[in-house]
Amino acid sequence: MSKAAVKPSGYTVDIHKVNVRDLQIECDAVAVEEPLEIRLGFFENGKKVHKPISITMRSPGDDFQLAAGFLFTEGIVSDPDEIDSIKFCGKFPNNKNTVRVDVLKGVNLDLKRLERNFYTTSSCGVCGKTSIEALATGAKVLNNEISQNVSYSVLHELPRSISANQKVFDETGGLHAAALFDLSGELIDLKEDVGRHNAVDKLIGQKFLDRKLPLESSILFLSGRASFELVQKAVMAQIPVIAAVGAPSSLAVEAARSFNATLVGFVRDRRFNIYAGKERIDI
Amino acid sequence: MSKAAVKPSGYTVDIHKVNVRDLQIECDAVAVEEPLEIRLGFFENGKKVHKPISITMRSPGDDFQLAAGFLFTEGIVSDPDEIDSIKFCGKFPNNKNTVRVDVLKGVNLDLKRLERNFYTTSSCGVCGKTSIEALATGAKVLNNEISQNVSYSVLHELPRSISANQKVFDETGGLHAAALFDLSGELIDLKEDVGRHNAVDKLIGQKFLDRKLPLESSILFLSGRASFELVQKAVMAQIPVIAAVGAPSSLAVEAARSFNATLVGFVRDRRFNIYAGKERIDI
Repeated sequence: MSKAAVKPSGYTVDIHKVNVRDLQIECDAVAVEEPLEIRLGFFENGKKVHKPISITMRSPGDDFQLAAGFLFTEGIVSDPDEIDSIKFCGKFPNNKNTVRVDVLKGVNLDLKRLERNFYTTSSCGVCGKTSIEALATGAKVLNNEISQNVSYSVLHELPRSISANQKVFDETGGLHAAALFDLSGELIDLKEDVGRHNAVDKLIGQKFLDRKLPLESSILFLSGRASFELVQKAVMAQIPVIAAVGAPSSLAVEAARSFNATLVGFVRDRRFNIYAGKERIDI
Repeated sequence: MSKAAVKPSGYTVDIHKVNVRDLQIECDAVAVEEPLEIRLGFFENGKKVHKPISITMRSPGDDFQLAAGFLFTEGIVSDPDEIDSIKFCGKFPNNKNTVRVDVLKGVNLDLKRLERNFYTTSSCGVCGKTSIEALATGAKVLNNEISQNVSYSVLHELPRSISANQKVFDETGGLHAAALFDLSGELIDLKEDVGRHNAVDKLIGQKFLDRKLPLESSILFLSGRASFELVQKAVMAQIPVIAAVGAPSSLAVEAARSFNATLVGFVRDRRFNIYAGKERIDI
């Protein structure tokens, strides 16, 4: 994947723009998404220890502020004077994806809160690995033979089908939808949730409990943006085509390409962009 | 707060609709957001144990599917036959906010993965408590005297000011913005991120490190929806006014009312809705 930096938080990837029947290959900027592990160094019974307390998918940049803001807004530190140092502590090649915040000796941390509310990783899950390796959940690469023929016109119709079926959104404006379509564009199921990962978990969980996995002949439609974790969840269920109304992140594109999934973004107004797996789309 | 159920995932609250200079009191539906704790029961050295492995803010409903989908897409279970039972296990009054999934004896779980990637809470953080009590981070209730005079016209202008300053969004369409304004509508700082909670953490973290907290004379502007955790983070920094382009969730409204913060949603096209703390807005 080309990684020419455009802006601090965006880089370009080659994509295929589809506008009605017109296919163009262009470069487009995607928002960079990478994991950040926040580690906390503190004194326990007089001994210095450090623990990873959070892994978040973020746009690189302002990482010390992110770590400090997270620790403050989650009630772990209350004053900047409690902090001894903030530094990157990851290993090559992702040395900027781990931030370690050390608090001064004598600072009283609510260790019960830490234990109760946060990741208490015993080994670093991110340092020294590529992000996809570190975060992948054992998803299998999709077979190239799966679902070769999704028509562009089926993709064009998905948003309309969703609006007709998404009940709560119109009323509250506050929900994400995840929907499963068959390859002819028939709606199979739709779930809504305040969290987009929850909507996808509900949708796939339903099919899992109904013993309908793998979902090799289906399209996952997302009412918002496509992030790494949503692509990863789709691949776990072997869904070959992911279509989002919004933009994908860089790691979503990278994951779709790694797992041989088709990723389509900006599916609205009778156009869309293909970020990965264009061979499954019949234009 | 009135809780008349409208739809499975929406309920109504009294709000104030502001459209240019016209103030109306109406009922409006908000998307319900509540925490769900997923607990996993399994056998370790022949003994049955159960651990909370995730707390997520979700729309109630399809909770067994959500739990099953989470466990499957995160690579913890791989077959529905591994599951012995799924049931609600919380205590009154929030007995529907904890789901326990028990796997059968003999099912091999990757416990290292569990330990590495998930919350390993030793006691239940949600059961038997109200959600706000359980999730609050020691945030202090805002003083009524703080910032009585935010003009409606200042709120109207926020989206325009943001578009002029949000750099990456236009290029990628993939970022959330969080911005801090003073009470006259001057932009103080703006951060963008693929995760909206990260954008807020970066913004507040910057001010924390600059020793500029509490932010008692400021407005937090969000480019998307307002969730519980964003309101909670704002209150930690004592930001009295939260204005979002999108909709708030039920728990965001509840949190704003509990902490005496002002919460305004749908700030666009020269209108907005006031969900909490209308006394700070000068109409």
